[in-house]
Amino acid sequence: MRFATINTQGLRLWGAIVPGGFCDLSAAYPEFDGLKEVIAAQALSRLEVGGVTHAEGHFSYEPPLVNPGKILCVGVNFPDRNAEYKDGQDAPPHMSLFPRFASSFTGHGQALIRPPESPQLDYEGEIAVLIGKGGRRIARADALSHIAALTMCNEGTLRDWVRHAKFNVTQGKNWDRSGAIGPWIVPFNDPDQIVDIRLQTRVNGELRQDDRTGRMLFPVAEQIAYISTFTTLEPGDIIVTGTPTGAGARFDPPRYLVPGDIVEVEAEGIGTLINTVEDER
Amino acid sequence: MRFATINTQGLRLWGAIVPGGFCDLSAAYPEFDGLKEVIAAQALSRLEVGGVTHAEGHFSYEPPLVNPGKILCVGVNFPDRNAEYKDGQDAPPHMSLFPRFASSFTGHGQALIRPPESPQLDYEGEIAVLIGKGGRRIARADALSHIAALTMCNEGTLRDWVRHAKFNVTQGKNWDRSGAIGPWIVPFNDPDQIVDIRLQTRVNGELRQDDRTGRMLFPVAEQIAYISTFTTLEPGDIIVTGTPTGAGARFDPPRYLVPGDIVEVEAEGIGTLINTVEDER
Repeated sequence: MRFATINTQGLRLWGAIVPGGFCDLSAAYPEFDGLKEVIAAQALSRLEVGGVTHAEGHFSYEPPLVNPGKILCVGVNFPDRNAEYKDGQDAPPHMSLFPRFASSFTGHGQALIRPPESPQLDYEGEIAVLIGKGGRRIARADALSHIAALTMCNEGTLRDWVRHAKFNVTQGKNWDRSGAIGPWIVPFNDPDQIVDIRLQTRVNGELRQDDRTGRMLFPVAEQIAYISTFTTLEPGDIIVTGTPTGAGARFDPPRYLVPGDIVEVEAEGIGTLINTVEDER
Repeated sequence: MRFATINTQGLRLWGAIVPGGFCDLSAAYPEFDGLKEVIAAQALSRLEVGGVTHAEGHFSYEPPLVNPGKILCVGVNFPDRNAEYKDGQDAPPHMSLFPRFASSFTGHGQALIRPPESPQLDYEGEIAVLIGKGGRRIARADALSHIAALTMCNEGTLRDWVRHAKFNVTQGKNWDRSGAIGPWIVPFNDPDQIVDIRLQTRVNGELRQDDRTGRMLFPVAEQIAYISTFTTLEPGDIIVTGTPTGAGARFDPPRYLVPGDIVEVEAEGIGTLINTVEDER
């Protein structure tokens, strides 16, 4: 089952993606403003999905959660990623974490925006987990049970702005609509959905990133346990779990995104998030 | 005029702080859910304030904005702060920025929480500006006109957790209720309210930080201009503008906060934010 938030003729609806299109559930479940509220009520598995209400081609995708909670991204989380920094430092004992604002993401099928201030828009294909059950100091053994659903993220980055400051990547990671989340969310019921799945990124059909979540330096369960040590996780929070080696900045010369490029992030069992690239107008 | 969000017998109200106590405005202005909505409507200056509805001692303070937008903190923004890092690096060309989640702050008069995972809870006294008029790529010359109000922040930090990871201070800056915002907000009408005011932090009455905003490496107008280059500022967003030298970590040996300490952050023309310190229970 796949649930999504869509836009049709200026109207935002949430529902399910079914063969042939979209099945609106907004009208049938007025008690939920959106998928975040469904998740908070742990009601994903109770939704009754019918047939197509909006045929393919008659709607566009928005990020699945309209008003997500905290969005925390894990950096440097695959083998070789630490070496890519070429700073001679050993891999760190703890995960690198940075927040992104919801405004830095667009939906599936939309254009990632390259701003006039930087030619260094880069892709990072990742899997995102949506927290369904909140908690503080969640034990690693229980951590996966706090996940409501999975989706994908293109954690689009302006590389030169990442290095603007002494610490922190904030300003390179938070350009409006520089990244994307979606297309949909897939309910999470089984650890096998996340512990060792394949994650790939293609640009114009060329494979650029290709790895498996089983090779993460800090697996998802450890991410949830560590993050919830310092901050209470809430339903609707999103953890973006890290990107494999192979982003455009790692090539020599770098291969940044340019208008017209098509970027696909594909995760086994979840789907494919596709975005174009446009210069800001 | 000073506006605040308070809690009385489990009920959250917003209104004004007046001689003798609090004047509730929630009932008189039901169109506003809270001060964020007042600010978004640019209605602060139109509020009609009456007499005390809740006498001093019969309410507690919450952070002024219940559901703030983005919270962006500026790091390393006063002379000598860069030198304090002793890493031999020159001052960076751009400001360091990191987000904090609203859950990392408590209100005036409440205890900052020292968690069992770290003995290194530290204070950072700062001035926070609340954005009233949103925008993208705001010109520096216009930037101050986008401020609705000023308040103070104790940008409480767990020092060892700041250094957990390769980049980014996220996990040292986002412990639940490790910092505070308040007590109130003061409407902003005149650049003189921010361009060169005195900012002090005292611990148990001892002066620890003492500087003036006129000495900021990146003044507030530049912060607004720079941040709005990459992200659209919205009404209710908060910029925490940087702390002077003199945090506890800079002493030899360090002087971290311990239960029973009283921390005061005072800013000229705004007020004094006072917090105690407690171990997490």
